[in-house]
Amino acid sequence: MVGQVRHNAEEWFKELRGKLVSTLEGHESVQFKEKKWNHAGKGGGLMSIIKGDLIEKGGVNISTVSGKFSDKMKERIPGAKEDPSYWATGISVVLHPNNPNIPSMHFNTRYLSTTQTWFGGGIDITPCLEFEKEAQNFHNNLKSMCDKHDNDYYPKFKKWCDEYFFIKHRNEPRGVGGIFFDYLNEGDSLSEFQFVKDVGLFFHDYVDNILKKNKDKTWDDNDKKKQFIKRGRYVEFNLLYDRGTKFGLETGGNVDAILMSMPPQASWK
Amino acid sequence: MVGQVRHNAEEWFKELRGKLVSTLEGHESVQFKEKKWNHAGKGGGLMSIIKGDLIEKGGVNISTVSGKFSDKMKERIPGAKEDPSYWATGISVVLHPNNPNIPSMHFNTRYLSTTQTWFGGGIDITPCLEFEKEAQNFHNNLKSMCDKHDNDYYPKFKKWCDEYFFIKHRNEPRGVGGIFFDYLNEGDSLSEFQFVKDVGLFFHDYVDNILKKNKDKTWDDNDKKKQFIKRGRYVEFNLLYDRGTKFGLETGGNVDAILMSMPPQASWK
Repeated sequence: MVGQVRHNAEEWFKELRGKLVSTLEGHESVQFKEKKWNHAGKGGGLMSIIKGDLIEKGGVNISTVSGKFSDKMKERIPGAKEDPSYWATGISVVLHPNNPNIPSMHFNTRYLSTTQTWFGGGIDITPCLEFEKEAQNFHNNLKSMCDKHDNDYYPKFKKWCDEYFFIKHRNEPRGVGGIFFDYLNEGDSLSEFQFVKDVGLFFHDYVDNILKKNKDKTWDDNDKKKQFIKRGRYVEFNLLYDRGTKFGLETGGNVDAILMSMPPQASWK
Repeated sequence: MVGQVRHNAEEWFKELRGKLVSTLEGHESVQFKEKKWNHAGKGGGLMSIIKGDLIEKGGVNISTVSGKFSDKMKERIPGAKEDPSYWATGISVVLHPNNPNIPSMHFNTRYLSTTQTWFGGGIDITPCLEFEKEAQNFHNNLKSMCDKHDNDYYPKFKKWCDEYFFIKHRNEPRGVGGIFFDYLNEGDSLSEFQFVKDVGLFFHDYVDNILKKNKDKTWDDNDKKKQFIKRGRYVEFNLLYDRGTKFGLETGGNVDAILMSMPPQASWK
C-alpha cells in the first residue's frame, strides 16, 4: 500500500512538473534549463530554471530521495525516532515575474514516509503592488477547491500559512497568504492524495490565468522599485525563517536547488 | 576606572563617527541622513545613511546602550552569569560602493561591560572583481598597524576573521578577510583602547585612499552583474550566519540599524 502511494505520488509530481513547464514555456520565447542533481543519501532531483521575459526567474524542482535522518533530526520528524530511515518525493516551484502587476508565486507538495507517512505542501502568493481584489479572488477560489475535499481544510491551512509566512522582525506577512499544510495523514491516503493533486492543478491554473490576465498591464520605475524592496523581504524570510531552506543548508543539500527560490534582483532601502 | 574607559570609548566612537562622515561627505555631492533610535533598555543610537554617487549605500551607526541580558543570553556572555546587567558602546560601518572596482567595506569596534569588560571589533573587505594585489596591500598594511601593538594580533585576528566570514553552505569566504577580534581584555585596557583607536583610524584612511584611487576606474555591465551576485552572497552571510544580525533580530533590536548592512541591490543567478 505504502509502496503504491509512493509510486503514484512520484509519478504525479513528474506529470505535474511536465504540465507546469509546458504551460510556462508556452508563455515565453525561451525554455527551461534542466539540471540533474544527486542526493547525499540515495536518489536525487531535477531542477529546471527559466529566465524569460514574463518570468524574470522561475524554478521548478522535483526530487525523490531516501536516507537516514541524523540523531538530531530524527527527534523532530514523526515516526523517525523508532527508525531513522526516510523516503521522500516532492515538487517545489517559485516564480518571480518581471511585471510588478503579477505576484511572486510559490507552491510545493510532497509525500514523506518514515514509519509513518504523510503529505505536506502549500500555495502562497506575494504581490508587491495593490492586489486586494485579486487576492480576495485567489482566496475565494482556493477555499472552493479545499471545500470539495474537507470543509476544515481552508480555514485550518490558511491560518497555518499566515502564521508560517510571517516576517517576525518586521511584524509583517511575506505576502497575502494562501494555504500551508503538513502531516496530512488522517487515515485515507487516497482522498488526501486527491487533494494534493488538486492543489497542484489549482496552482497550474492560477499561474496560467494570472499571466494571461496581467502580463500586458503597464508599470513604471516606481513599481519596479517597490517590487525590488518586496523581494528583499522575500529574501529575508527565506534565509531567516524558512524551515526548508534552513534544513537543506544545515544538512548539506543541493545549494542551487535550495536557493532556487531567491529572486533574480532585490534591493534594500 | 571602568567608568573612565566607558566615557572615553563612547567619546572616541563619536569622534571617529564625525571623522568618517566628514571624509565620506567630502567625496560625495549628498550628505548623510541621520536617524536617532532608542534602545529597548536604556540609551540608543544614531544611524546615518548615505546614498551617494560613489557610495551607493553606506551606513554609519553609533550606539550606547544598557540593560539586562535575558536568561538565555546571559549564559553566553562573559561575566553576565553572575549579574545580567550590561553596558555597551560601539560604532559600526558598512559601505557598498557603486563602482565594482571598490570593495564593500565593513568595520566595527565596541566596548562591553558586564562584571567583566572587553573590546571587540574588526575590519574586512569584499571585492567583487580581481583584487589580489590590492588585497595583499590591505593585509600588509593591516599587519603593520597590528604589529605596532602586539605581534600576535595580526595572525590571530586574521585567522578569526577568515573563520568568521565564511559562507559555509557555499564553502567560500565572504570576501578577502581582514581582522576580527573579541573579548580583548588581557589586563591593559589603555593599550587595548589605543589598538581599537588605531583600527578605526586605519579603516578611515583605507576608505579615503581606496575611494580616491579607484573611483575613476571604469567598469562595464558584466562587472556590475558580478557585483550584484557578490552582494547576494553578502546577504546570505549576514542573514544566515552573522551573530550581530541574529542577536539583534532575536532580541528585538532596531531593525533598520541591524539591517543597515544590506546592500542597495543584489541578485541571484
